[in-house]
Amino acid sequence: MTINDNARELLNARYGTELDWEPGEWNDTLNVILSHRSVRRWLDEPVSEEQVRSIVAAAQSAPSSSNKQTVSVVAVQDAEIKKELQVVGRQMFNHIETAPVVLIWCIDHSIARLLAEREGKELGALEYFDEAGLGFLDAGIMSQNAAIAAESMGLGTVYLGSMRNDMERVQELLHLPTHVVPVVGLAIGHPDPTERAGIKPRLPQDAVLHWDAYGAPRPELIDAYDTALDTYYSRYGQHQLWSHQFVSRLGAESIIKTNRRLVRRVLEKAGFGLR
Amino acid sequence: MTINDNARELLNARYGTELDWEPGEWNDTLNVILSHRSVRRWLDEPVSEEQVRSIVAAAQSAPSSSNKQTVSVVAVQDAEIKKELQVVGRQMFNHIETAPVVLIWCIDHSIARLLAEREGKELGALEYFDEAGLGFLDAGIMSQNAAIAAESMGLGTVYLGSMRNDMERVQELLHLPTHVVPVVGLAIGHPDPTERAGIKPRLPQDAVLHWDAYGAPRPELIDAYDTALDTYYSRYGQHQLWSHQFVSRLGAESIIKTNRRLVRRVLEKAGFGLR
Repeated sequence: MTINDNARELLNARYGTELDWEPGEWNDTLNVILSHRSVRRWLDEPVSEEQVRSIVAAAQSAPSSSNKQTVSVVAVQDAEIKKELQVVGRQMFNHIETAPVVLIWCIDHSIARLLAEREGKELGALEYFDEAGLGFLDAGIMSQNAAIAAESMGLGTVYLGSMRNDMERVQELLHLPTHVVPVVGLAIGHPDPTERAGIKPRLPQDAVLHWDAYGAPRPELIDAYDTALDTYYSRYGQHQLWSHQFVSRLGAESIIKTNRRLVRRVLEKAGFGLR
Repeated sequence: MTINDNARELLNARYGTELDWEPGEWNDTLNVILSHRSVRRWLDEPVSEEQVRSIVAAAQSAPSSSNKQTVSVVAVQDAEIKKELQVVGRQMFNHIETAPVVLIWCIDHSIARLLAEREGKELGALEYFDEAGLGFLDAGIMSQNAAIAAESMGLGTVYLGSMRNDMERVQELLHLPTHVVPVVGLAIGHPDPTERAGIKPRLPQDAVLHWDAYGAPRPELIDAYDTALDTYYSRYGQHQLWSHQFVSRLGAESIIKTNRRLVRRVLEKAGFGLR
């Protein structure tokens, strides 16, 4: 198989359909990125401290807004803490407590506070929404570098947005001060090859990518995606109508059920003005 | 040079100091990630449509919260629009208008709105802060996959947080409806090898990485970083005291100067309740 056959195969899987454009130059990193799937079953094998350090070095190599570096990470290996994080996550599977390591990404202005005090200055930017938005953005940029790094090493990953179900409990468990905000988790381990999960198709590229000017969503692309995703799930004996599930996932019920109505309070307690 | 010599060299550059732990297995993708530097000078060479499509396929391969896929991207190639984005960016260099392509990443609930209307449902989750935070997070996760993909292809990138200086103008330029929120840009092109910029050191890993329990910032690590970054800049005949600049970048002045006090208004107009 040439490298471009491989590219086409990965792209076909990613969109659940035959590619109608020609991929150009291809490489190992694109293979890693395009091969991503979320992993929720792990082999009973540790992730070494050196691996965690390499993964975090990759995360720190990501761009940082104005080089402010206001994201920190707690690497959780302790079995008791992971068990409690599993409770916070309220997931169908036990992939949080069984993961060898769970990285918790935090918006963290601790160094800024220390330095501001030293210089007798105010951190006035924290009064504005932008700084909080930027915190979530930078946490995403940084954690995704970590995810790609881990996957390049043959490890599997899964994001844990469910850590926002109870951020105050996560703060308590990790001894985070109230001004350090845990925004998302990333569980890492050795993938159990018996887990039945493949590359999940995404929306057709033309539903997401616009050239120079934005265009309204095209219903036929959404229908095509419903079909592609249902075909994917049918391989596992399941059926799913994405467009229907999607709308219900954006209902108020989903916030109330997961308790995420408290996210704003945690940010306010952390000193974000959100103006 | 063995692959581990290369690893050590990259890690030494990334932290601006001699590594005091042993990197484990290393690979090409870690090389790409650790070699990152922001590029602001481009060769006069186009980025092909196929390259943009591969980069966006990489972005779409990133994890997406509950597979909601609420981030879209506008690939700007038009010279006039890039010139206007340069005006929005108010940068020292002209790296926005001269980049062959600028990707603008948007929080986009257009498909959700269409489907909700079709099903007669409400998108109640948008009332809560979590959904906006998650939008910024997912935009970061997705755009970073794009950045790594581009860099793996030998292209250079630079993030444009400065698009938030005037999001309403960006909406106007790209014909974005008010409910589509442009959160960050990513300029992509062929790096001009004469640009004098290297791998910028980051904070010592122990200032960012905690094991199981959070620890307060250690002033000696901040001082060490001030030294490492100043040593880096002195190679380019410049000097910089990070800790001082950092605090001033978090002053209210930095928000007022860049006009980012309007970010919240744009989100509210887009239908985010931010409760």
